Amino acid sequence: MNAEIICVGTEIILGDILNTHSQFLSQELAALGLNVYYQTAVGDNDRRFTQILKTALERSDVVFLTGGLGPTTDDITKEVACELLGVPCVYDESVGEKIKEYFLRSGRQMTDNNLKQAMVPQGSVILENSWGTAPGFIIEKDGKTVVLLPGPPRELRPMFLERAKPYFQAKMEQPILSKSLRVFGIGESALEAQMEDLVRSSNPTVALYAKDGEVLIRVTAKASSEKVAEEAIDGMIEELYRRLGSHIYGINKDSLEQVLVELLREKKLTIATAESCTGGTLAGKITEISGSSEVFHMGIVTYANHIKHQELGVKEETLRRWGAVSEQTAVEMAKGLSQKSGADFNVSITGIAGPTGAVEGKPVGTVYIAVEHHGKVWCKRYQFARNRNERAYIRTLSCLNAMNMVRLTIQQPEETEKEYQNV
Amino acid sequence: MNAEIICVGTEIILGDILNTHSQFLSQELAALGLNVYYQTAVGDNDRRFTQILKTALERSDVVFLTGGLGPTTDDITKEVACELLGVPCVYDESVGEKIKEYFLRSGRQMTDNNLKQAMVPQGSVILENSWGTAPGFIIEKDGKTVVLLPGPPRELRPMFLERAKPYFQAKMEQPILSKSLRVFGIGESALEAQMEDLVRSSNPTVALYAKDGEVLIRVTAKASSEKVAEEAIDGMIEELYRRLGSHIYGINKDSLEQVLVELLREKKLTIATAESCTGGTLAGKITEISGSSEVFHMGIVTYANHIKHQELGVKEETLRRWGAVSEQTAVEMAKGLSQKSGADFNVSITGIAGPTGAVEGKPVGTVYIAVEHHGKVWCKRYQFARNRNERAYIRTLSCLNAMNMVRLTIQQPEETEKEYQNV
Repeated sequence: MNAEIICVGTEIILGDILNTHSQFLSQELAALGLNVYYQTAVGDNDRRFTQILKTALERSDVVFLTGGLGPTTDDITKEVACELLGVPCVYDESVGEKIKEYFLRSGRQMTDNNLKQAMVPQGSVILENSWGTAPGFIIEKDGKTVVLLPGPPRELRPMFLERAKPYFQAKMEQPILSKSLRVFGIGESALEAQMEDLVRSSNPTVALYAKDGEVLIRVTAKASSEKVAEEAIDGMIEELYRRLGSHIYGINKDSLEQVLVELLREKKLTIATAESCTGGTLAGKITEISGSSEVFHMGIVTYANHIKHQELGVKEETLRRWGAVSEQTAVEMAKGLSQKSGADFNVSITGIAGPTGAVEGKPVGTVYIAVEHHGKVWCKRYQFARNRNERAYIRTLSCLNAMNMVRLTIQQPEETEKEYQNV
Repeated sequence: MNAEIICVGTEIILGDILNTHSQFLSQELAALGLNVYYQTAVGDNDRRFTQILKTALERSDVVFLTGGLGPTTDDITKEVACELLGVPCVYDESVGEKIKEYFLRSGRQMTDNNLKQAMVPQGSVILENSWGTAPGFIIEKDGKTVVLLPGPPRELRPMFLERAKPYFQAKMEQPILSKSLRVFGIGESALEAQMEDLVRSSNPTVALYAKDGEVLIRVTAKASSEKVAEEAIDGMIEELYRRLGSHIYGINKDSLEQVLVELLREKKLTIATAESCTGGTLAGKITEISGSSEVFHMGIVTYANHIKHQELGVKEETLRRWGAVSEQTAVEMAKGLSQKSGADFNVSITGIAGPTGAVEGKPVGTVYIAVEHHGKVWCKRYQFARNRNERAYIRTLSCLNAMNMVRLTIQQPEETEKEYQNV
C-alpha cells in the first residue's frame, strides 16, 4: 500500500514551526509496511490544498492529513477533503457532547465555533480525541483512504498510536517487522565498508542512518508470519554483532542515555557528573530518563576555574600548570566528585566548546573526559571538530562519549580494565 | 516571487531523519519576501523526483532543491534537474581542484566518484562549498530559477546564508522587513483576544505563533524603502509594548536564555543554579549561550534528597516535614546555593516531572522555583500540566519560568520587589 503525508498549516510553510509530523508518521508507516513516497506541506489555502490532495489521491492509496481540524475559519482540512471526496459532513450528537464536556471540565468558555468540530464526515471512522477537542477521522471512498489527524503533536501522536495504527495493523496482510540497532564510536563510512554486502541484502533489508556521531541500523523483514520475519531479523542481527561487537549499544532503544540508565539500574550502580564545557547537559540527558533517580543522585557544573577548586578540590597548581582543559584537571575533577558523591561512576568533562577559548595545542573541540570507577580512573582526550561554530555539536558528542565510556566499562569489563589507571 | 522547497532524500521520507531544511529555508525566504506555498519531500528516485520538480516549475518561479549532490549513484538531484531543464553538465576544472585539495587537507582518500561533484550545470552560478565537498548551484532557464543546495545542514545553512541569500537580496525590488517579538507568561488565546484588531492589519502584518509556553509575534512590512518599512514596524511594536508590557522579553532574539545571558552580562550580574526535577537542564540552557561563562560559574544538580542536605544544607527536618517538593525546600536550596556560589542570582527548582512521584495535593507538574537575590527570596509555585506523560514539557517550562523570574527582576525591579521576602 502506498501512502503519503500532507501537513496543512500556514505556520509550517512560513517556517514558524518545525514540521515534526512528517518524520513521526513516516517512521510509523514504514514500520507498518506502508510505502511512503511523498511528504508535502501546504498552507491553509482552499485552492492550493485541494490541488495537492487531488494529486495525492491519484498516486497514493492512503493519504494522511495533519492539522486544520480546529474551530476557526482557517481550519479547512475536513471541509476540503469532504468536498473533494464527495462525502457530506453531518453533526454528530455524541462528539458534540464530548466537546461540551471537555470545556466544562477545563473551566473554559465554549463558543459556537467549537461545535464545528462536531461535524463529522458521513460514514467515517471517528478517532476520539482524549487529548484535546478535535476528533480525527478515517474516510474510505472509492478504494482510497484519507486519514485526518489534529495538528498539535500532543494530540496527533497518541491519536495515531492508539486509534489509527490498530486500524492499519488489522489491514496489512503480510507481516513486516523491523528492529533497530544503535551503534556508537564508529564512523559512517567505516561502517559502510564493513557492511557493504549486508546493505545489498533484499530480505531482510539493512539500512544505515547516521546522526551526530551515532549510526542507526534498521533491519526489516517481510515474511509469511511474524515468527519467520523475526527469525530472519535475528539472524541478521547476529551477523551484525559478529562484525561490530560492542559498538552496538542497544536493540530497539531510543538513546544512549536510556541504555545507560537501564544498565546502571540493572546492576544497581550509581553515576555522578562533574561538567565544565557541557554545562549540565550530561546530567540533563541522564535525568531525561524516567527512573534515573535510582542511579543518579548528584551532578555539579563547575564552569569557572575557582569553582573546580572550591567544589571538587582541583588543585590551583594543576589549573595553573596544565590548564582547565587537561587530563590532569579532568582526573582531579572526577576524583573530587567521587569524594562527594560516593557514586560507582564519577564522570568529568572539561573542554573547549568554542567559539572562543582555543589555546596553542588545544583547538576548539578538544575535550577531556575522565571516568572514576572504584578508585581507578580512565581518562581520554577527544578532538571533536575544528570548526569554531560547532558549540552544540561538540557539547553533544562530549556527553555521548562520556556515557559510552561508562557503558563500555559495564558491558566490556575485561576490555576496558586496562584503560583504568591508579592516579 | 513564488518559491517552493523540495527536499530530496529517501532518509527523509522513511522518517529516519528530521527534515529541518524546510523550516530553515521557509523562514529565510519569507524574510526575503519570497512567498513559499509548498514544501515537498521525495526519495532518491528518478521518476518521482522528476515529476515533483516538473510540477514545481509549473507553479513556482523559484525552486529550492536540497540534498542528493553527493558522490554516490543515489545522488541524482543535479542530473535530474539538468535533464529536465535541458542544461548540460560539464566538468569544471577549478571545482575539481578544490575537491582534490579538500581531500588532501583532510587526509582522506579521494575516489573517482568524488569528481562527479565537479560536473557543473553549464552557465550556472556556482555556490562554493567551504564546509564540505559538493558545490551548490543556481540555474536560470526560461524565467525559472532552480537552486541546488547540499543535504548536510552544516553545509546547507552557511551556503544559503553566505552565497544564495545575497543573490536573491539583489533581485528583490520592494524591500520587505520583519521583526520578531518574543512573549512569555501569557497564553496564546489571552494574547489573541488582546490583539484581535492588530492581527487583521495588512501592512504591517502581525502574526502569532505559540510554542511551549512562549509566543512569537512577527511584524512584517513592505514599503518603498527600508527606512519606511522599519518605521511602520517600529510603530506597531510600540503599540504591542503598550498592550503587552513586560511580557515581551526581546526583539529579534533567539531565546529566553540568550536574552537572560545578555542582560546579566550588561549589568555585570552572575547567576547560579540548583536543580532537582530539571536535572541540569537549566544550567545546560544557560551555557548553550556563548559568553555565558562571564555570568555563570556554577550549578548543582541535587537530584536525591540527601544531596540537597549535603550540598545545599537543606535541613533534614524541612525535607521530612514539607517534602522535597515544597516552598520550604526550594527556598533553602536557593539560600544554600548562595552560600557556595556568591552569585547575584541563585535559582532553585524542585518539582514533580512525572510520570511517577505525585503525592496528595501535589500532582505531576507541581514545581517550586525560588530565586535568591541579595539576601531576599522570591518563591513561586507552578502547576504546569496534569498529564503524566509530559516530563519533557514540565522540565522545559520549569527552566523557562525560572529564567523569566530572573529576567523580570532585572527588567522590572519595582514591580518584582514586592515578591521578594526576607526568609
